[in-house]
Amino acid sequence: MDLDRRAALTSGSDTWHTTGDDGLPALTLADGPHGVRRAREGGDALGIGDSIPATCYPPAVALGSTWNPDLVRRVGRALGSEARALGVDVLLGPGMNIKRSPLGGRNFEYFAEDPHLTGVLAAAMVEGIQSAGVGACVKHFAVNNQESDRMRISAEVDERALREVYLAGFEHVVRTARPWALMSAYNRVNGVPASENSWLLTDVLRGEWGFDGVVVSDWGAVSDRVAAVRAGCDVEMPPTGTDHLIASAVRGGTLDAAVLNRVRSRLALLHQRVSSSTGVRAGDSPARQAATEAAVLLKNDGAILPLVDPGRLAVVGELARTPRYQGGGSSRVVPTALSSVLEALVDRLGDAITFAPGYGGPSPEELITEALNAAQGADAVVLVLGLAENAESEGFDRATIALPGDQLRLLARLAEVNSNIVVVLANGGVVSVAEWRDQARAILEGWLPGQAGGEALADLLLGVHSPSGRLAETIPLRLADHPSHLHFPGRDGQVVYGESVYVGYRHFDTLGVPVAYPFGHGLTYTTFEYSDLSITEIGDLRWEIGCTITNTGERAGQEVVQLYTGLSEAAPSRPRSVLRGFAKVNIEPGQARHVTLTLTGRDLAVWDVRHQRWTVDAGTYEIRVGASSRDIRLTGELHTGGDGFRPPLTATSTVGEWRAHPVGGPLLGRVLQQARAGRTTEIAPELLRMVDGMPLITLRTFGLGLTPDVIAALVDQTR
Amino acid sequence: MDLDRRAALTSGSDTWHTTGDDGLPALTLADGPHGVRRAREGGDALGIGDSIPATCYPPAVALGSTWNPDLVRRVGRALGSEARALGVDVLLGPGMNIKRSPLGGRNFEYFAEDPHLTGVLAAAMVEGIQSAGVGACVKHFAVNNQESDRMRISAEVDERALREVYLAGFEHVVRTARPWALMSAYNRVNGVPASENSWLLTDVLRGEWGFDGVVVSDWGAVSDRVAAVRAGCDVEMPPTGTDHLIASAVRGGTLDAAVLNRVRSRLALLHQRVSSSTGVRAGDSPARQAATEAAVLLKNDGAILPLVDPGRLAVVGELARTPRYQGGGSSRVVPTALSSVLEALVDRLGDAITFAPGYGGPSPEELITEALNAAQGADAVVLVLGLAENAESEGFDRATIALPGDQLRLLARLAEVNSNIVVVLANGGVVSVAEWRDQARAILEGWLPGQAGGEALADLLLGVHSPSGRLAETIPLRLADHPSHLHFPGRDGQVVYGESVYVGYRHFDTLGVPVAYPFGHGLTYTTFEYSDLSITEIGDLRWEIGCTITNTGERAGQEVVQLYTGLSEAAPSRPRSVLRGFAKVNIEPGQARHVTLTLTGRDLAVWDVRHQRWTVDAGTYEIRVGASSRDIRLTGELHTGGDGFRPPLTATSTVGEWRAHPVGGPLLGRVLQQARAGRTTEIAPELLRMVDGMPLITLRTFGLGLTPDVIAALVDQTR
Repeated sequence: MDLDRRAALTSGSDTWHTTGDDGLPALTLADGPHGVRRAREGGDALGIGDSIPATCYPPAVALGSTWNPDLVRRVGRALGSEARALGVDVLLGPGMNIKRSPLGGRNFEYFAEDPHLTGVLAAAMVEGIQSAGVGACVKHFAVNNQESDRMRISAEVDERALREVYLAGFEHVVRTARPWALMSAYNRVNGVPASENSWLLTDVLRGEWGFDGVVVSDWGAVSDRVAAVRAGCDVEMPPTGTDHLIASAVRGGTLDAAVLNRVRSRLALLHQRVSSSTGVRAGDSPARQAATEAAVLLKNDGAILPLVDPGRLAVVGELARTPRYQGGGSSRVVPTALSSVLEALVDRLGDAITFAPGYGGPSPEELITEALNAAQGADAVVLVLGLAENAESEGFDRATIALPGDQLRLLARLAEVNSNIVVVLANGGVVSVAEWRDQARAILEGWLPGQAGGEALADLLLGVHSPSGRLAETIPLRLADHPSHLHFPGRDGQVVYGESVYVGYRHFDTLGVPVAYPFGHGLTYTTFEYSDLSITEIGDLRWEIGCTITNTGERAGQEVVQLYTGLSEAAPSRPRSVLRGFAKVNIEPGQARHVTLTLTGRDLAVWDVRHQRWTVDAGTYEIRVGASSRDIRLTGELHTGGDGFRPPLTATSTVGEWRAHPVGGPLLGRVLQQARAGRTTEIAPELLRMVDGMPLITLRTFGLGLTPDVIAALVDQTR
Repeated sequence: MDLDRRAALTSGSDTWHTTGDDGLPALTLADGPHGVRRAREGGDALGIGDSIPATCYPPAVALGSTWNPDLVRRVGRALGSEARALGVDVLLGPGMNIKRSPLGGRNFEYFAEDPHLTGVLAAAMVEGIQSAGVGACVKHFAVNNQESDRMRISAEVDERALREVYLAGFEHVVRTARPWALMSAYNRVNGVPASENSWLLTDVLRGEWGFDGVVVSDWGAVSDRVAAVRAGCDVEMPPTGTDHLIASAVRGGTLDAAVLNRVRSRLALLHQRVSSSTGVRAGDSPARQAATEAAVLLKNDGAILPLVDPGRLAVVGELARTPRYQGGGSSRVVPTALSSVLEALVDRLGDAITFAPGYGGPSPEELITEALNAAQGADAVVLVLGLAENAESEGFDRATIALPGDQLRLLARLAEVNSNIVVVLANGGVVSVAEWRDQARAILEGWLPGQAGGEALADLLLGVHSPSGRLAETIPLRLADHPSHLHFPGRDGQVVYGESVYVGYRHFDTLGVPVAYPFGHGLTYTTFEYSDLSITEIGDLRWEIGCTITNTGERAGQEVVQLYTGLSEAAPSRPRSVLRGFAKVNIEPGQARHVTLTLTGRDLAVWDVRHQRWTVDAGTYEIRVGASSRDIRLTGELHTGGDGFRPPLTATSTVGEWRAHPVGGPLLGRVLQQARAGRTTEIAPELLRMVDGMPLITLRTFGLGLTPDVIAALVDQTR
């Protein structure tokens, strides 16, 4: 095939299609983390707000809070089925960046502040989508954790934070769910554009993790075509009409022609995967169940929820009538149907409901008066608060996590006339609750619940189901407490990831900073008891953690059992406690379930930047099992000798490392004894400690006979 | 001259001498930040503890707390005179690294946690030393802020933190005091060894700052000889007998021979500077005054100090008899004399003193009983607490900032029998006070005060002088509050400077974290009133800040007037308040002094990493004048339009940047108006905001006619 036609494969044929050739059909791509956004033919470039209607599932913020991979897999399968029916080959999702800051404008498209939870749920989503015969395209790889200056910003992040936090979720997905495609991000990582970053796209992604799919650029992410293709970004999207640059680079010898063959074979493999799949049809739409399991019951004083006998109910808040159910930007879909909390409650309770919008209109004081009237005569108030459409979106970050002032003033006034206020929240990014939560008896965080959200929330409020969502991100007491606060969103094209590995609860829990609600928190309508912790070694650096969960309440419910680990002894530069496993279990009242979780060496490991490997430190690890990162019910200890890795001694190993070595220590001791023979000066202990920190080679000027030759011989003897 | 002889100049001739040649004498170097450590001929390699006696001045921790550049200049001159008398050509000091963590083992050798205070004092020291005809050698350049694995660790630090914190002090010294030599550090900076780092040693140090002296390596810091010389590290110390590597690199063409000529001419200039200086003789030794001005009175309840009528005094604590007065490691000198607090108090008060060691012996309980007996019959107790010789030193970091447990138990017991306890502290690194300070009526932090410390502290306790030291580092409530806590000292050869520019009080004050005693704090025996703040523009980006200080108390005293600035509006990624100037003024009771401080654009600037320049943001800056970073007495505002820097528009400038540009905005507006002519679709505001963040070039695929050619033409029209 001629060079120009091969070069053409490295960009799309238009905004939503790859380029094909005689033996290779073009592939159709569509936005779609939480709904298939199939642009209408002839729409404008972005096509946002003008796509073919499709089921609007809960965005990732809500799916993340379900802590239910099986359910997320079903959502994926349903999305995939719908995509396939619409002729889509690759769905551009799931998004799986880490919620580094609560201000991130696109946080609603991401699962969690934790890479384990993110990785497990994203893998389930990928498996679901691909089981329907459609390729998933995980994104945005990597370190795309903010919208501010997102197309130019350089995320300055150390390798441990990269490996342990920002890449870990992607690694899990690539290794276990094998996505057919991946999208490279807009931003730079330590100065190098993610879409032109061969370390990320080739060394790590393919070399270490074994990715064999197609890498497409985020839309408009490529600036240097040749660098991108060379680095492993196979396809530029959308096309910029610059394929001739690729061809001339090959002609000029600055780009290996083999790179183009590689792009074609990857596209061919993707086409083969799509076309050979039979595609499992999805069953019932899981949209409503996903919305139900996503909602997090933050507080429930005096068990005001569920409203089993609601009496007269005031429903207040424009968001009860005009729901927020998805976020803004490229992920926005046109839903096939839409329910509001108000409609759903009126359907069930009819005349018992009085509605007042409360905020959002041109005459705030009148709206408040109307709402107070409704609340005064009611047995309880369901008050829906949240963020406006234009308050959070792809493309910009928030500047505050506070709810709008008019909503908080309304709440304060309502609390004066009715003490039974149930707040339902509708928001994609986390909102602070500390300043107003005392005014509400219950808070049900519904997130952005997709098109079936109204029915789902009504089910929870009325007790048809018990809430089972858990926080996938910490709710801080104040924004300034957050580890990213001083380092977000950067300036002058650079953002320093100063918190390093201490992202989210890793920071709060290590330093003991008080929070409003911790990571993993969520109430239900029943209670659970934890017992019988067991820690069983089941192989080399492999353990099974078991426990029994008993439903000690009156209603059925789901518990999310969470496993956290940390080194028991003080360990600088290591979080105190990190999520390593979880299981969501449905238990009838009075019943018990045994839960087992597997723990591996990798779960305990940190990334050793010197030796470029995962290292399991020897030591005693604390095993913590509980209902949130701060509600630990069972603790135990696990002792391990580590992974046995002992770096070989060299001339730059310190005297202390030499002395600690079983062979090198005695060898060095003999040399030094000879050298000091006859000397009587005593050496102060602090000087000996100082010498312990010196690389052996630096002692060559000390007149101890430690010449480079002698040291080389010593090194040889330790091999 | 033949190549081998020229190559020989790039390392020393022995541990304490450079290599000379026919026209260039060898130069003699000596350790000496706080005293000339002239090794005895024929001593061992390190020679620590066995040097010729010399005056032991207070180490930098104490000099830093004087906040008195004139005094530090006198100390420098005295050191230089002594060095010259001992035949020393270059004194290896001052040390001027930033106290990044209170755990830093060598903090006693450094001035402050703040680069402005560090820079001003180090410059004074350099001026003093060099006025005596001896070269100063500022060290350790750069980012050598810990002892743990110091010879291998890589300090991973972003460029703003480098420029604004870790390099700023060095920059000030090089630009204003012109040191004749500088010592490169052991550690790596962002992966590149400081002693082989051409960006640091050539681009920044010489290229930007104009350094024209000799760079010597820290002792044993060089591992790649050729890389070091090429990068601008002129002389390896001590010699490793590897000069042939330099010669063969020149022969092999991998090292430019001109580099060797450069080394020789730098050595020649240094020799010329030393030999042509007449050398001003110092007057009286300032050792005692420096110790006096260094002590910081942290608390003084009910004005228990000074002990004007002490009555019977119990002096407790082994450290009162056996003083800690300097730190361990290469800086240790053999003093010419030594006074202890106990001796000094007995000299003045005679029989009124009862002494008990209290701790430090083999029978702790007996020591406590003896101390309680002494305290019970006394009108007041002077209790000297502190750190042991082997608790802090060059070569290792501390693991805690707590005082020893036996000392705290003694204090608690004493507090039960005597309510007039005055604690005097002796320590090089900061110690925590929060857990015990309620048991003492006064705390006088004496640091390591040098050989005259005993007399100096007695002067302060008895009111001969009023304390005038101020904290050069924050005393936190607990170690875990410190910004470096989670990121110190790193592991596996890497330490992440996660706090970025938020070092010390920049962190505490920006986040409002409570501290035990803030940066700049220190009481006196009198009181001062601040008035008449004036802010006068005296030139382009140049202001004079004036105020009047009145001594409103009964005694003479020195006030340290401190000027802090910050942007008034919320400014992410910028400390709330930063020290920009200070003045120490001596005022008699009832008298007033007018103080003026100069503020420049550079003082308000942040380092713009994108454009590699200091940028003064337009805005309103708060001017805060006070007695510590948290004891602000006068505030005012300063409005500036900034430095007028407007980066030229390019194709990668964002749509928002184009729209904000006076020329580019209207130009782009017209193009877009034409492109959208006839279209009626409304665009949601959040989408418009999203587009504002996109580089203009990424709009080329939007069908708006913004081809690269059109954009290039637009760019041209804005030039």
